[in-house]
Amino acid sequence: MSAPNYGHAFALWRAGAGASWDNYTQHAFVEGLRDGSLPQESYLHYLRQDYVFLIHFARAWALAAAKAETLDEMAAASATVHALVHIEMPLHVKTCAAYGIDRTALEATAEAPGNLAYTRYVLEAGYSGDLLDLLAALAPCVLGYGEIGLRLAGNTGPYADWCDTYAGAEFQALCKNVGTVLDDALLRRLGPDWHELPRAKTLQSRFTAATQLEIGFWNMAQSP
Amino acid sequence: MSAPNYGHAFALWRAGAGASWDNYTQHAFVEGLRDGSLPQESYLHYLRQDYVFLIHFARAWALAAAKAETLDEMAAASATVHALVHIEMPLHVKTCAAYGIDRTALEATAEAPGNLAYTRYVLEAGYSGDLLDLLAALAPCVLGYGEIGLRLAGNTGPYADWCDTYAGAEFQALCKNVGTVLDDALLRRLGPDWHELPRAKTLQSRFTAATQLEIGFWNMAQSP
Amino acid sequence: MSAPNYGHAFALWRAGAGASWDNYTQHAFVEGLRDGSLPQESYLHYLRQDYVFLIHFARAWALAAAKAETLDEMAAASATVHALVHIEMPLHVKTCAAYGIDRTALEATAEAPGNLAYTRYVLEAGYSGDLLDLLAALAPCVLGYGEIGLRLAGNTGPYADWCDTYAGAEFQALCKNVGTVLDDALLRRLGPDWHELPRAKTLQSRFTAATQLEIGFWNMAQSP
Amino acid sequence: MSAPNYGHAFALWRAGAGASWDNYTQHAFVEGLRDGSLPQESYLHYLRQDYVFLIHFARAWALAAAKAETLDEMAAASATVHALVHIEMPLHVKTCAAYGIDRTALEATAEAPGNLAYTRYVLEAGYSGDLLDLLAALAPCVLGYGEIGLRLAGNTGPYADWCDTYAGAEFQALCKNVGTVLDDALLRRLGPDWHELPRAKTLQSRFTAATQLEIGFWNMAQSP
Repeated sequence: MSAPNYGHAFALWRAGAGASWDNYTQHAFVEGLRDGSLPQESYLHYLRQDYVFLIHFARAWALAAAKAETLDEMAAASATVHALVHIEMPLHVKTCAAYGIDRTALEATAEAPGNLAYTRYVLEAGYSGDLLDLLAALAPCVLGYGEIGLRLAGNTGPYADWCDTYAGAEFQALCKNVGTVLDDALLRRLGPDWHELPRAKTLQSRFTAATQLEIGFWNMAQSP
Repeated sequence: MSAPNYGHAFALWRAGAGASWDNYTQHAFVEGLRDGSLPQESYLHYLRQDYVFLIHFARAWALAAAKAETLDEMAAASATVHALVHIEMPLHVKTCAAYGIDRTALEATAEAPGNLAYTRYVLEAGYSGDLLDLLAALAPCVLGYGEIGLRLAGNTGPYADWCDTYAGAEFQALCKNVGTVLDDALLRRLGPDWHELPRAKTLQSRFTAATQLEIGFWNMAQSP
Repeated sequence: MSAPNYGHAFALWRAGAGASWDNYTQHAFVEGLRDGSLPQESYLHYLRQDYVFLIHFARAWALAAAKAETLDEMAAASATVHALVHIEMPLHVKTCAAYGIDRTALEATAEAPGNLAYTRYVLEAGYSGDLLDLLAALAPCVLGYGEIGLRLAGNTGPYADWCDTYAGAEFQALCKNVGTVLDDALLRRLGPDWHELPRAKTLQSRFTAATQLEIGFWNMAQSP
Repeated sequence: MSAPNYGHAFALWRAGAGASWDNYTQHAFVEGLRDGSLPQESYLHYLRQDYVFLIHFARAWALAAAKAETLDEMAAASATVHALVHIEMPLHVKTCAAYGIDRTALEATAEAPGNLAYTRYVLEAGYSGDLLDLLAALAPCVLGYGEIGLRLAGNTGPYADWCDTYAGAEFQALCKNVGTVLDDALLRRLGPDWHELPRAKTLQSRFTAATQLEIGFWNMAQSP
């Protein structure tokens, strides 16, 4: 599928990630969500791990707010934290409850190594680098889920709710906003030709590494 | 005045800060707000510097969310960021506009050294230490303004709006919540006798240092 | 084997890590080093990955120096950085050169996921927590290698050099020093009964997680 | 005096700091060191405050090592930490001892606000930004002292030892090395035209702010 329009940096980095991008967004796990063949056990395993993931991912977006240089950057980052904590995570709680996993069980989830690797990579990129390093590492998750959502829109199988969430207007608006924040942050610091600077290689490598860690996450999710 | 009830840690640290606490909360600048004798020029200087202050202070609360260990800690910290960015800062913009200082002028404010010293101290405490170090350094601003607000409640002078904001139910609820988050965070990490641990001295010294930096901020604000 | 005497915290955390500790220090990879059965290909794969590991590990010890509260803590942490950069890493360069892997090849090593997971976990523990969180996550590598070194001391097989390095007086002195720094840092912040505080569980979980990431590192190293 | 040759970035930033640079490097305190008119009381006050300063400054250089992207960057930063902890700080201890201030008294120094403001600004710049932000904030101290040292070289007054230290070959070599690390780090990330990027303004503002904080430090030192 063609790239969704989430801005300039996303288009470049998505292309730069090469086959890894398709291996992530068209992973067997995703195909299982699409055609309904994903075993429920895998799905629940995924939801539990994703709950732990979202806690650390929200922390990483909070770190982005701490590293912001403008009010717009701060507002965008803190709005994302807010969405994760008050919208996406309650959804997980509700979905898991429907499958008989209560909140206590959810919160007792042991973090899988492939899960831990991803979030700590993102957080460390943010702490050791600046806001650009952090955004480059955060982008694949948000924007990749947006792209998957668009591809799976209108799904009527057992995982239609999941597809609707990421295909939905709210999540797509978040993706467009993140894409804009990213482009603005790059322009504001590095100018219009930022992609020709040596720094662009580091940023691409962070985007690509996070994309590969998404693949690792799907692999982990698939095998409870 | 007796200490407001913002929890156990606040009561201990407020007492531990000694005369510095009164020098902060009953500073000549505050008395000028109370009896209306504060020159408007000083007030506007304060509002401009406080605008810059709030940006960095919001970054520090965002860092607290990044350093949170529980969802409750994260939600409290990110709610505070939200309040600062979406409530307190727009209030500054509006008040300044009423005095003829437009947003561009406000954002062009040169940060005074006494302003910079305070926020960087708080942020660095948070980055180098853990959430407790950060909360101990964040507490004097929020809770001190709460205490000042209670003392100046019902003020009818030229600075009644300012007094109302910090005396108001919304800000007082925030103070109580911050006090609870603080007590819970201490209990959760260090147990009920945390104040007898060596660590308590470091935390007190962070609270006291931030209190003294508040005094420096008022001093700076008073002399445009 | 009985625990080496690297201090009080190490003894507690080593016991607290349960079977994971033996699974790490008596891993099949280690047994292969001991009895010489480890394929050379695996050993070279390990050396290359460990080179990348040491760069990030040295960064983590540098972060410990940044987070130190006393000169002694800073001196110990910076001495470890110095040892890693000026002693251990040149050894890797030299050993690899002897096997025909030049420095350029060594530096071009692609970081394996099991390698990345470990160092980012440690660094993030340090950035998000305080010095104690960081030291608890750093301890299993240094002290575990010390214990392995003692067990493999006097080895005369193909990996005798590796065994000598970690059994040697210099590395053992480093281990004792790290153990002392750890005990002192705990005592200085949390007092003599620190192991009874809730915080002790978090620190144990960091030590245990790092131990499990060591197992993941050996697993990765074993299968080039 | 003409700028010492500490590299390209230093030349640009020194010019960009405008009058602040001369106000720092030719401050009345410095002139008092040069012509011997500085009261001994001020000098001892300075030494005590500078001792506290160096602890935090060493932490900031350790943070630079943690944020390094290459071994060369890490080695340069950790060598500076080493020099500060093992050379410059013992010199302070020795000098103070000669004036009757023992180590305990030295370590009990209460950090002055103008001292705290400076080091926390530098550390926070490093934590919130990347290595370039940190180096831009670190540069004025090291390179400014190098320039002052060159100007005061050969001094025979009561502060000849101080002048010799910073005029000496060892410190001048450190300055040249820091200048090179800086130029290399900029080139490596932003390319040869880095000074034309928007980012250059942020870096200049960090250099200028740190220069102004040096002036604040001299002001504080002059008035015990």
